[in-house]
Amino acid sequence: MAGEGLHFKSADFEAWESRYRANFFNSLGGYKSFNLLISRNSEGVLNAAPFFSVQHIGSNPPLLSLIFRPHTVERHSLENFRASGLATINAVSAEIVDQAHQAAAKYPREVSELEAVGLNAVQRDFSIPFLKESHLGIGLQWVSEQKIHANNTLMVVASILEVHLNKPEALLNDGFIEQHRLNTVSVNGLDTYYLPKPLKRLAYPESNSKPKEKAWPKKN
Amino acid sequence: MAGEGLHFKSADFEAWESRYRANFFNSLGGYKSFNLLISRNSEGVLNAAPFFSVQHIGSNPPLLSLIFRPHTVERHSLENFRASGLATINAVSAEIVDQAHQAAAKYPREVSELEAVGLNAVQRDFSIPFLKESHLGIGLQWVSEQKIHANNTLMVVASILEVHLNKPEALLNDGFIEQHRLNTVSVNGLDTYYLPKPLKRLAYPESNSKPKEKAWPKKN
Repeated sequence: MAGEGLHFKSADFEAWESRYRANFFNSLGGYKSFNLLISRNSEGVLNAAPFFSVQHIGSNPPLLSLIFRPHTVERHSLENFRASGLATINAVSAEIVDQAHQAAAKYPREVSELEAVGLNAVQRDFSIPFLKESHLGIGLQWVSEQKIHANNTLMVVASILEVHLNKPEALLNDGFIEQHRLNTVSVNGLDTYYLPKPLKRLAYPESNSKPKEKAWPKKN
Repeated sequence: MAGEGLHFKSADFEAWESRYRANFFNSLGGYKSFNLLISRNSEGVLNAAPFFSVQHIGSNPPLLSLIFRPHTVERHSLENFRASGLATINAVSAEIVDQAHQAAAKYPREVSELEAVGLNAVQRDFSIPFLKESHLGIGLQWVSEQKIHANNTLMVVASILEVHLNKPEALLNDGFIEQHRLNTVSVNGLDTYYLPKPLKRLAYPESNSKPKEKAWPKKN
């Protein structure tokens, strides 16, 4: 590989134009999840913001994290979520990827992104509505925030209070949710969407045996 | 959706068997990236650990984060990375997904997972080797660690010192890296691997216009 491939160092990164640099580093680490966060402000206006940064933090108790960048439109979501303590996270499927992407546009605070982009909220037995068009909704409670001092981004940790799954056939009998049955998209970079296709499941790795495929379990 | 789909609450989560719960919550947030972290201990033994938690934190300066769970084999990587200040992150492609998954097995500290699973290190002009079989390697420098108090996981922030890409054709002229040309896999849950297929690129969203597709730019 040495000599054949491309090799970039810090001096190259600094010389790049900012949009080039953003595309490069946003695509470097690999595929990301794509979810829409719904929150509500004190005037009752629903805010919807696309997130590429939902991350699993723990299963017991169930926790996830979100990264908020400084000075972006996501700040409305941050302020709402912090103030009310509740929000929902909604999986984005291929059918609504255009609308969910559009929700990142800079709308005024009094405008609901959901209405602006043509998506709908549905009220369930949770204070904040879910995205009607999503197959998988998660009800969140604010736990904590901590600053990442290296660049002033903020990590918010939230606990998972409830889950709505509108396609029961996507839940396998070992607890795994087949996101490909929900048509959930993945994203890389800032604007490039993918549809993942199942490759294989692998058995729990043991040091005294070779990797082996795991039977894809039955539907629940 | 109400009444048709599945609805789970905290009491359900607590009643689940632990492996079911782990599968459920690890697959809930959507698709994740899959990378192998290589570090070196003070005796010179290379450690390799699979990570589903590489996350983009910023582009200028270029930063990423890794989540380390308490009491897992990843702790060898954590100790090595913390002590030496350097590590590499290597994209996992479909060709080596079995070996990369196997690297999560519990090997003794004096055993190099790379040798144990049949992968190879390649030394470049960086203190820590890269994964020879990977098409995309990232040289990292330790920046900081912070505990996530909700469950004692640790987030490590690292800065990106260099990047090696052995397929120049995967880098578009706007800086975006087409991971699908590298055959990079995505993972969901704990053991289920996917190959993402390109769906679409969307233009930067503006509040006064409709979502539109972006031309897929030329190769670099």
